[in-house]
Amino acid sequence: MDLTETSPAERAALLNAIADALSSAADDLIPLAMAETGLAEARLTGELKRTVVQLRMFADVCAEGEFLDVRLDAADPDFVLGPRPDLRRFNLPVGPVLVFAASNFPFAFSVAGGDTASALAAGCPVILKAHPGHPRLSALTAEKVRAAVATAGLPAETFDVVHDQDAAVRLLRDDDRIAAAAFTGSYKVGRLLAAIAAGRERPIPFYGELGSVNPVVVTPGALAERADTLATAFVASVSGSAGQLCTKPGFLFLPDGHGLADTLGSAAGAVPGHPLLHEGIAAAYAARRAAVLATPGVSVLAEGSVEVGPSGRSLAAPTLVEVGLGDLLKHRATLLDEAFGPLSVVVRYDPDRPDLLVAAVGELFPGALTATVHRAAGESDAWLRGLVAVLRERVGRLLFDGWPTGVAVTPAMQHGGPFPATTAPATTSVGTAAIQRFLRPVVFQDCPPELLPAPLRDDNPWRVPQRRAAAGASQNWGHRSA
Amino acid sequence: MDLTETSPAERAALLNAIADALSSAADDLIPLAMAETGLAEARLTGELKRTVVQLRMFADVCAEGEFLDVRLDAADPDFVLGPRPDLRRFNLPVGPVLVFAASNFPFAFSVAGGDTASALAAGCPVILKAHPGHPRLSALTAEKVRAAVATAGLPAETFDVVHDQDAAVRLLRDDDRIAAAAFTGSYKVGRLLAAIAAGRERPIPFYGELGSVNPVVVTPGALAERADTLATAFVASVSGSAGQLCTKPGFLFLPDGHGLADTLGSAAGAVPGHPLLHEGIAAAYAARRAAVLATPGVSVLAEGSVEVGPSGRSLAAPTLVEVGLGDLLKHRATLLDEAFGPLSVVVRYDPDRPDLLVAAVGELFPGALTATVHRAAGESDAWLRGLVAVLRERVGRLLFDGWPTGVAVTPAMQHGGPFPATTAPATTSVGTAAIQRFLRPVVFQDCPPELLPAPLRDDNPWRVPQRRAAAGASQNWGHRSA
Repeated sequence: MDLTETSPAERAALLNAIADALSSAADDLIPLAMAETGLAEARLTGELKRTVVQLRMFADVCAEGEFLDVRLDAADPDFVLGPRPDLRRFNLPVGPVLVFAASNFPFAFSVAGGDTASALAAGCPVILKAHPGHPRLSALTAEKVRAAVATAGLPAETFDVVHDQDAAVRLLRDDDRIAAAAFTGSYKVGRLLAAIAAGRERPIPFYGELGSVNPVVVTPGALAERADTLATAFVASVSGSAGQLCTKPGFLFLPDGHGLADTLGSAAGAVPGHPLLHEGIAAAYAARRAAVLATPGVSVLAEGSVEVGPSGRSLAAPTLVEVGLGDLLKHRATLLDEAFGPLSVVVRYDPDRPDLLVAAVGELFPGALTATVHRAAGESDAWLRGLVAVLRERVGRLLFDGWPTGVAVTPAMQHGGPFPATTAPATTSVGTAAIQRFLRPVVFQDCPPELLPAPLRDDNPWRVPQRRAAAGASQNWGHRSA
Repeated sequence: MDLTETSPAERAALLNAIADALSSAADDLIPLAMAETGLAEARLTGELKRTVVQLRMFADVCAEGEFLDVRLDAADPDFVLGPRPDLRRFNLPVGPVLVFAASNFPFAFSVAGGDTASALAAGCPVILKAHPGHPRLSALTAEKVRAAVATAGLPAETFDVVHDQDAAVRLLRDDDRIAAAAFTGSYKVGRLLAAIAAGRERPIPFYGELGSVNPVVVTPGALAERADTLATAFVASVSGSAGQLCTKPGFLFLPDGHGLADTLGSAAGAVPGHPLLHEGIAAAYAARRAAVLATPGVSVLAEGSVEVGPSGRSLAAPTLVEVGLGDLLKHRATLLDEAFGPLSVVVRYDPDRPDLLVAAVGELFPGALTATVHRAAGESDAWLRGLVAVLRERVGRLLFDGWPTGVAVTPAMQHGGPFPATTAPATTSVGTAAIQRFLRPVVFQDCPPELLPAPLRDDNPWRVPQRRAAAGASQNWGHRSA
């Protein structure tokens, strides 16, 4: 039996077995992750827990069977458009998925991360391209996954890992078995891989999460109410994990005369250098930081640094700069690129012309993973409503009075957004809906009962939700639960 | 107010108004369609009815509100991964959709067809590229749609038509407002447009339905049970609408020694020439037919014809050929291309080696809109199960004991399939699920009640289905209905 043929319960058991294996191996995995990524123990412990919980969540999603989206339309001789056949539809796994792991979440977006968990839950074998930032951790994690696959009696090709980049590109470009690809990483690489997927002899869907600059707007009301709290929480959100998070706030819009320059500068100045994930990121970050600092109209709130530390690894301390809205618009070509590290840009706007702010935000951020609004309790002026309307068209997640870093893994979560945040804005890479990326519907028409797949049978041996449209009602389009 | 801001009930009213307008104009629309396409009155009357019913179906889908997929996850201070914010997710329209109309369904896949209906239902303005095969019908239909839009008090840009091909390509390539495109037509044009959509500065999803060759397999049991019925129904399915249907059976697999050559030949020979839709199709069909007839190993069952008739329009009478499985595999490069017209290929297979048939079918048809199995009652041998398993991986719709032409418009319908049948195998262009193509999720995090969009509010003013995940249960991933 291969993975495609497993029942939801069997697939759930596999996912839970992988979760168990990772949990038990925490004492080996965490030190390896610390050594290879420079991330802190507390952060990695939390991330491993999240990864384990995520695997169990997809096990539950799988067992529940809702993802199959079973629809049964009974035959109807009196249908308004003429006799209608018996139609039974459900979601099939698309086939083997090529997953490109990210460097910044060595557990949650890597070997046994969300893409792997959701693909396996959908019934798709996974070939994982390990990130060179943590090769030994990737190998050990893969070993645990493979052991769980073997114990479940599934073939070895259910899960495989490649470390070589050229080999992965060849798979993406040439391997006819690969049915979809998922990627978390930079705009540049993501766009390149997306083009390869689209240019194949048989193109495949490419689910790329390409990063984001995540604007945060503070209203005059919020500033009046809690300026200092906002400043320190902003610095914490920018500098956590050395800013190497795709939801790091890249721009903080503050009313002119905010008076927070000193608070922001000293809060950021108090954060020590933190190791960057790998030298590729360090080099790119140093270049971005230099370009931002050299941009006309930019003033420095906290200079920060990026330099090679005693261990030979590059360390970065937060850099905060400030610019007026006009200069941001003028120098957008330089300033708008994502700086993957602890750098953020404070933007002054005229509180008497919030219309200019709304227009600029709409123009500057065509697609982002998140946007955030900080407002005072009860504030809901027309311009604020306008801002919300503009932002919601441009993001996957719109936050109020919080910070975008830290993505809750829940059914409603949407971690995605219009291009350039992702290459597939209708999908998410976090939360239960992530499974949808790896499914494809098929309908069986007038299929004899003995040839029907289990979820489409009237006796419903897998006990999955079945939505029925009964015969007899000529305008019966509804999907009523059985 | 623009379309995006309308409530489901308002959008449903618009769709019903368009349906009413088309219904009332049948006496003007049908004769125009007959004159421009050469399709028969009965076929066009049925198609207009289907188009009207389809608009009403999407009105109902819209009013029901299930398509919004509202998920409300309550805040949870005791969540297993740490305090969880209030998350409220729903589907937004993606934005303006560029629809390329098809020539072969001047109502159902044209100006007010399924793509337009599903995009409007999703809340997306539509720019429709009219097909040059029926320009006057397109203009008149567009006039009816625009009148309904105006009566509903919606802005003119809710629905627009372009007739010029270069203008449409410019919109697809350069217009930053276009958020998605839908297309029904040839592989060649579809692949070209898909590349333009993927190569934009900001790529957009391209939903292309590129046609299909639709294999049909007749088992030895079915042949023994009802050979003559199968033969005549096959010819009717191949020759209906002069074979200009994307679900026309392109290949009929019959056991060696089927003895149906004469029956097939005379049934096809009795079908008179039928006008082809336009000269582009006539030229392409004539070339394909000539190539098939010249292929080694191909014998003629019914020669048929394609020639210019007295009215100056090209007429085609059905062409049936036969080939052995080995020759089909050998000459696949010539034989497998879609012949858009009344041509089909009978393929002999060895009934003692059904494994070879299953392997060949798997190899020859990587993606098709449909596949069909005709079997005798009770037949469910291992090879037949194997065939079903292979076919379901390669199609959007798998039929038993029927013919693929004639697509029922129902909730469970899946009109799609792996590439090259479509460019987006997870989607359908017929049936209620077609609306999904034009939606994108967004989640509101900790949004104050007064800024929440209507479908996310606790008082649920639009009365749409809301799925809630309550707080308090640490492993609570489910989407329970409210």
